[in-house]
Amino acid sequence: MTDPRYTPLAAALPSTVPFVGPETQERARGAAFRARLGANESLFGPSPKAIAAIEAAARDIWMYGDPENHDLRAALAEAHGVTPAHVVVGEGIDGLLGYLVRLLVEPGDAVVTSEGAYPTFNFHVAGFGGVLHKVPYRDDREDPSALFAKAAETGAKLVYLANPDNPMGSWHSGADIAAALDRLPEGCLLALDEAYVECAPEGTALPIDPDDPRVIRFRTFSKVHGMAGARVGYALAAPGLASAFNKVRNHFGMNRCAQIGALAALADTDWLDHVRGEIARARDTIAGIARENGLTPLPSATNFVTIDCGSDGAFAKAVLDNLVAQGVFVRMPFAAPQNRCIRVSCGRPEDLAIFAEALPQALARARG
Amino acid sequence: MTDPRYTPLAAALPSTVPFVGPETQERARGAAFRARLGANESLFGPSPKAIAAIEAAARDIWMYGDPENHDLRAALAEAHGVTPAHVVVGEGIDGLLGYLVRLLVEPGDAVVTSEGAYPTFNFHVAGFGGVLHKVPYRDDREDPSALFAKAAETGAKLVYLANPDNPMGSWHSGADIAAALDRLPEGCLLALDEAYVECAPEGTALPIDPDDPRVIRFRTFSKVHGMAGARVGYALAAPGLASAFNKVRNHFGMNRCAQIGALAALADTDWLDHVRGEIARARDTIAGIARENGLTPLPSATNFVTIDCGSDGAFAKAVLDNLVAQGVFVRMPFAAPQNRCIRVSCGRPEDLAIFAEALPQALARARG
Repeated sequence: MTDPRYTPLAAALPSTVPFVGPETQERARGAAFRARLGANESLFGPSPKAIAAIEAAARDIWMYGDPENHDLRAALAEAHGVTPAHVVVGEGIDGLLGYLVRLLVEPGDAVVTSEGAYPTFNFHVAGFGGVLHKVPYRDDREDPSALFAKAAETGAKLVYLANPDNPMGSWHSGADIAAALDRLPEGCLLALDEAYVECAPEGTALPIDPDDPRVIRFRTFSKVHGMAGARVGYALAAPGLASAFNKVRNHFGMNRCAQIGALAALADTDWLDHVRGEIARARDTIAGIARENGLTPLPSATNFVTIDCGSDGAFAKAVLDNLVAQGVFVRMPFAAPQNRCIRVSCGRPEDLAIFAEALPQALARARG
Repeated sequence: MTDPRYTPLAAALPSTVPFVGPETQERARGAAFRARLGANESLFGPSPKAIAAIEAAARDIWMYGDPENHDLRAALAEAHGVTPAHVVVGEGIDGLLGYLVRLLVEPGDAVVTSEGAYPTFNFHVAGFGGVLHKVPYRDDREDPSALFAKAAETGAKLVYLANPDNPMGSWHSGADIAAALDRLPEGCLLALDEAYVECAPEGTALPIDPDDPRVIRFRTFSKVHGMAGARVGYALAAPGLASAFNKVRNHFGMNRCAQIGALAALADTDWLDHVRGEIARARDTIAGIARENGLTPLPSATNFVTIDCGSDGAFAKAVLDNLVAQGVFVRMPFAAPQNRCIRVSCGRPEDLAIFAEALPQALARARG
């Protein structure tokens, strides 16, 4: 015997990973990044109250976290005007998407997403043997009508839509998505990823009856709340679906300090407002840097700005590679034609100054 | 439409959870526990250096943790005399067991464990549709030969063995398990849970070639390292199996502070020695309390003592319920005949004093 007897599905899965982390890139280049602008983390940091809560809880880390996430779910329910039975807390949206796919998808089941949308969702669908059907972006936005039409055509159980979108930063109004929902086929669930919605214009979040069985919404403490390293995501769904997660989730999977920190972060709405302001300023700064270099910043409802480099994917990749070589961590979309762009996370003035300094050389090298 | 189209497997899964957390019990009784002795957490706490590392890392929680767990895997590899390619880090042993079961088990596949062994392993096996075959304990110990014989009989892909054992605290020498391995059938993988091995007698850990493809070992920072709330477990396995986890794991699932804290905890061998001493003293204290009350403490190689209450499961349950009613959180084995016992985690003198004070009344009420 040399290998265990993997399931046929597991044996056939590729060993590729959704994202190579910045630390891996740092180890490969033998130096730390000077500006960490590639993962849409919040360089403005978490609420000082969340930091203090984590620090205070550190000595109690010998205790398992509450497997029911009771206090955090209660606070989230209050914040969203739902009951705790509508709330599922998990190890980031990534973890929750994995559980959702597991609940719904078995080998051969159809799932719909956009070409070039979130790779980790695709990783989970492939991981459970689902068959992905992809719809192109339309004018750099995900296309709800086309997604739902494809779901009808393929008999999909699940369709993924991020609003606002990553990697393009584009968005739809919640009202437009609600209207499009009429075309969602019977028996198909919409996984609506609202990871960035706290920094989107008013009206971007989907206004919906929390008991609507057609939609499960995902939110996170990783973006505007500035706690990516804590791994706290949550879903809002009808209680039947929310409770189904209990059948498969890692009940004791949540870090205790993360639970406590998230509770403090949620309560600090002043900090959230502060970060929203910083994000708005940083978006303007990034857009200005792009324009000064003859590039086109795309409108953004997120904590990053996607910049059209004005040519093809090979050119954008050359720009990106040179930025990385200069110690500026950025990413770019995976699929054409969005891959004509690079994606730059909002940062503090000092982070963006490094990007501003590095971009001209990156463009010159990519052109020459 | 009222429900999503769950997979048939998901639809059929029960909503039961492996363990009800102490916080749930506290909410139900309307008061906090006076002594938290039920989850085999380390009341001696984590290394002060781990606490300091978590506190120092709190303000950097805006960054995702390294998805490769590079530094922690490197340190673990050095500590165990293997290469980082032999090490998988995950969200506690619970999370890693889930990934392992997912890699190997599809509906109908046979899996072997002991009657009354770790329920979370069973939860995962059921969750992926595996068929559990259970072997009885023998003299309050898991029975490797019987487990491996059952694996041969059922064509099992996977067999679970905890050494030392939870909930009984019993153990085998690593040499005895190595000898029994000759009977492990070709094509069956042993999942050896060594969560408690750091507080077991010398020679309890399985001495084995790290490239042996028949065994995957699980270790954790939750027990003697005192970091249950951090959710850091790891597995040691042949590189082929270790890398297979990359096909399914939540790559960004690890809390950044937990990674950093675990690294500090691993380096603090003085603290580990200190905790080992405290555990040894606490085991003696618990055993003494049991004997003073006419009960029989079982030998323990873990951070808990299982106490034979001298009657049946109903009696032990009555003792447990009364302890809980007095604010003492303890647990008990699930299956007969082990459920004649209660299980008491090692604690500080002040925790065990509360147990000592509560036990006589609990016994009196259970008897009367």
